[in-house]
Amino acid sequence: MTLPETDSGIFRYMAVEKHILRLLESGELRVGDRVPSLRGLGGRLGVSVSTVNQAYLELEKQGIIEARPKSGFFVRRTPIKRPAPSRGEAPPRGPATVARGALIREVLDGMGRRDIVPLGVALTDPSLLPAKQIARLLSKVAAGDERVTGYEGVQGNLELRRQIAWRLAEADIEAGPDDVMITSGAMEALYLALRSVTRPGDNVAIPAPTYYCFLQLLENFGLRAVELPSYPEGGVRPADLRSALDRYDIKAVILTPNFNNPDGSMIPDEAKAEMAALLAERGVPVIEDDVYGDLHFGERRPRCLRSYDAAGNVLHCSSFSKTLAPGYRLGYLLPGRHAAKAFEIKATTNVCCATPTQVAAALYLAQGGFERHLRKTRGVLERQARMIEERVLRHFPDGTRVTRPTGGTVVWVQMPDAVNSIALFYAARELGIGLAPGNLFSSCDQFKHFLRLSYGNAWTPRIEQALADVGRLARELAEAGDRPEPAF
Amino acid sequence: MTLPETDSGIFRYMAVEKHILRLLESGELRVGDRVPSLRGLGGRLGVSVSTVNQAYLELEKQGIIEARPKSGFFVRRTPIKRPAPSRGEAPPRGPATVARGALIREVLDGMGRRDIVPLGVALTDPSLLPAKQIARLLSKVAAGDERVTGYEGVQGNLELRRQIAWRLAEADIEAGPDDVMITSGAMEALYLALRSVTRPGDNVAIPAPTYYCFLQLLENFGLRAVELPSYPEGGVRPADLRSALDRYDIKAVILTPNFNNPDGSMIPDEAKAEMAALLAERGVPVIEDDVYGDLHFGERRPRCLRSYDAAGNVLHCSSFSKTLAPGYRLGYLLPGRHAAKAFEIKATTNVCCATPTQVAAALYLAQGGFERHLRKTRGVLERQARMIEERVLRHFPDGTRVTRPTGGTVVWVQMPDAVNSIALFYAARELGIGLAPGNLFSSCDQFKHFLRLSYGNAWTPRIEQALADVGRLARELAEAGDRPEPAF
Repeated sequence: MTLPETDSGIFRYMAVEKHILRLLESGELRVGDRVPSLRGLGGRLGVSVSTVNQAYLELEKQGIIEARPKSGFFVRRTPIKRPAPSRGEAPPRGPATVARGALIREVLDGMGRRDIVPLGVALTDPSLLPAKQIARLLSKVAAGDERVTGYEGVQGNLELRRQIAWRLAEADIEAGPDDVMITSGAMEALYLALRSVTRPGDNVAIPAPTYYCFLQLLENFGLRAVELPSYPEGGVRPADLRSALDRYDIKAVILTPNFNNPDGSMIPDEAKAEMAALLAERGVPVIEDDVYGDLHFGERRPRCLRSYDAAGNVLHCSSFSKTLAPGYRLGYLLPGRHAAKAFEIKATTNVCCATPTQVAAALYLAQGGFERHLRKTRGVLERQARMIEERVLRHFPDGTRVTRPTGGTVVWVQMPDAVNSIALFYAARELGIGLAPGNLFSSCDQFKHFLRLSYGNAWTPRIEQALADVGRLARELAEAGDRPEPAF
Repeated sequence: MTLPETDSGIFRYMAVEKHILRLLESGELRVGDRVPSLRGLGGRLGVSVSTVNQAYLELEKQGIIEARPKSGFFVRRTPIKRPAPSRGEAPPRGPATVARGALIREVLDGMGRRDIVPLGVALTDPSLLPAKQIARLLSKVAAGDERVTGYEGVQGNLELRRQIAWRLAEADIEAGPDDVMITSGAMEALYLALRSVTRPGDNVAIPAPTYYCFLQLLENFGLRAVELPSYPEGGVRPADLRSALDRYDIKAVILTPNFNNPDGSMIPDEAKAEMAALLAERGVPVIEDDVYGDLHFGERRPRCLRSYDAAGNVLHCSSFSKTLAPGYRLGYLLPGRHAAKAFEIKATTNVCCATPTQVAAALYLAQGGFERHLRKTRGVLERQARMIEERVLRHFPDGTRVTRPTGGTVVWVQMPDAVNSIALFYAARELGIGLAPGNLFSSCDQFKHFLRLSYGNAWTPRIEQALADVGRLARELAEAGDRPEPAF
């Protein structure tokens, strides 16, 4: 037996990993079993001992196998049937121009419409936001101080920056108010960061799958995407990043280490540290999207790339859009050593952010109720994540897999190959249900039988019904088999 | 006598015009005199009759000479000693990369600081804004409707767009709410417009002088500036625009037809119509900045390029930052036929604008007090424009000229050649006074003895003293003569 050839040979360890996963799936390997020796398996598969070793280390990180002193590796638990990053092998896909605009416009068309069930929108339900509290503060701010009609500085309200810097300490980020810049949401932070470090035609490494607006931003700026496979368990891997840096002239990297949208993956802290060090060493700036970092389900807030960065090489982006008030359009950027450029771009994009909402948010954070509010929100989201998983497995066709995220607001659903998610999108829209088909999340067609579903909405009978309906439509498509796809 | 050679010969009519102005200045020609015949002057200056005719038509437009039937042209009034657009001839300067960033950062550094007298900032004083009224509405909005914590659509709040469309009818612009897009101030409208119609490396025609943030935006996007001379009386001339279009491959034009910042010029309505038609015919989009349009001193609101545009070729940009609440960051763009592109760019820049401020502004406009408020503001600004003119002529060195704008918030001051305005900027900063030196407003050094002064601030003894101080510093520099300039 030999492994399928990959385009470079660098990613053969992934094939070894898959081989072990297949043995677990078929029952040839069970919990407690000793996995084949490095040398034995290497010989059988025609790969080096170090390749097998790399695969075993990856499986160990995922908690599937464990090393026992002087005895080798043993199966610790069976892998949950989670989506693979793609159907085939998934080496970095390299430089491709991005053209997802038409599909994105089509999908976004239904967003924000109250007559559409919002399964496709990664929002936190208004009932999970402290809307009343912050509205009361905004009202007080507006009534009490006419000066809030005036401009803020380009960098933003000082008190808000101070509050943000304090909060960042929780994620082990050392920053003062001068390191923080207020932006109109995380989207603007990412826009400023990307413009600060790239020029048109540059290669940018980005996870696959990734948030479709990032792809659209690359498309708009004439940047080329080098896609790094993101795994539901563990996200983007350092080895893949390293090989992409070796093979392509990469000018910037975009990562969402905590709860990547759409696959919900979290990069383990050691891998974060490794990647931050690698990128600093190579002098390649990394844009970190941490918009879901506060919505973790674990005991402790996950760390960020920025917390491992002493070189000012990480441009850290986040916002209050998922946790406080999306309509206030408040996010922030820690631009690191690219601060001068980022300020200049902000000044010539829209000068500064609205004043009253900044002041109200600063007051809200200073009051100290935010952490308590977040704890409540996290609990609700975690419960709803489990509920949506259960519904998907109940209603969707056999063979469907779904992620079990440890934070954020979305699950990533892998349906049988025959289910084209764009066809599903159109069928669901006929029923007044909004979906985010997999093709949105990559510059190529590797995710066409995937679907992103949001569990951030309030859990209502309407949502229940919509999930059952979409599941039924997917089963119909699965039974009908492959059909010609709508063209995009 | 012959005229100085210009680089192309196309702009020789300007030299003829200057020749006549010099005769008026020296007293050789007086009010009521007949000006030399077309043929006679053409022969003397070695130019064609049509060149002299073009110059006389320009002088007639400015009201300096008038044609009397069958008798030729006569002097109607002596020209006011207003700044010339530059010291030498001023043909379109063509494609130049822009690099004003360092100087701009240095100047902006002092802005927004309360310890600096803001003579350099083109703001409307908070006392001239309906701060109390709008604050009351914002307070009410925030308290009354928690939904304002949620997102608005990309295009912005419908009621606000409706109000804007109604107001635009006053400027003879026919537009419905669907033609309007809400932006974070006019700066963002301009940014969206420019990105919608250009690619890096393109040539963009722009007035000289122009608002420095526009130059910085060109610089940031790698665009090349073709500078069109702007005259304090009449602004950019259609003939210059036409010749620039003939000579260079121009992809977009930026114009501020109403009260160009910094020279306060207004393009006459007939010239607006001519330019709108010319640009539509050539298929070259024009970005119109109308941020001062509502602050006219005349009886009637001046028209806009957009009002002459049926082709969707004018991207009309404006805001409420000078008239309502700069800190609310509310502007708008009429993107014309570039709407789809502009929406996409807005979505990937910052998704949408803050909701509460949009709703409050919509309520304010719906109440109907805005026009009354504007009338009051215009009166105060016109009075202050006259006051600053008087102070400049009193305190500044002999030979200083100052514009008499018919709207907006700034005067443009031409000092004797020996006064380097960057040296003046540094000297004034030592005294805690902020200035906007002429070099900011062009990609080349033609305005280095110019200064933009704002009269939008409340008129206080501190402002009076600052004007006297700056005048004294300028006189000292004039007396000291030319010095080595600080490098930029």
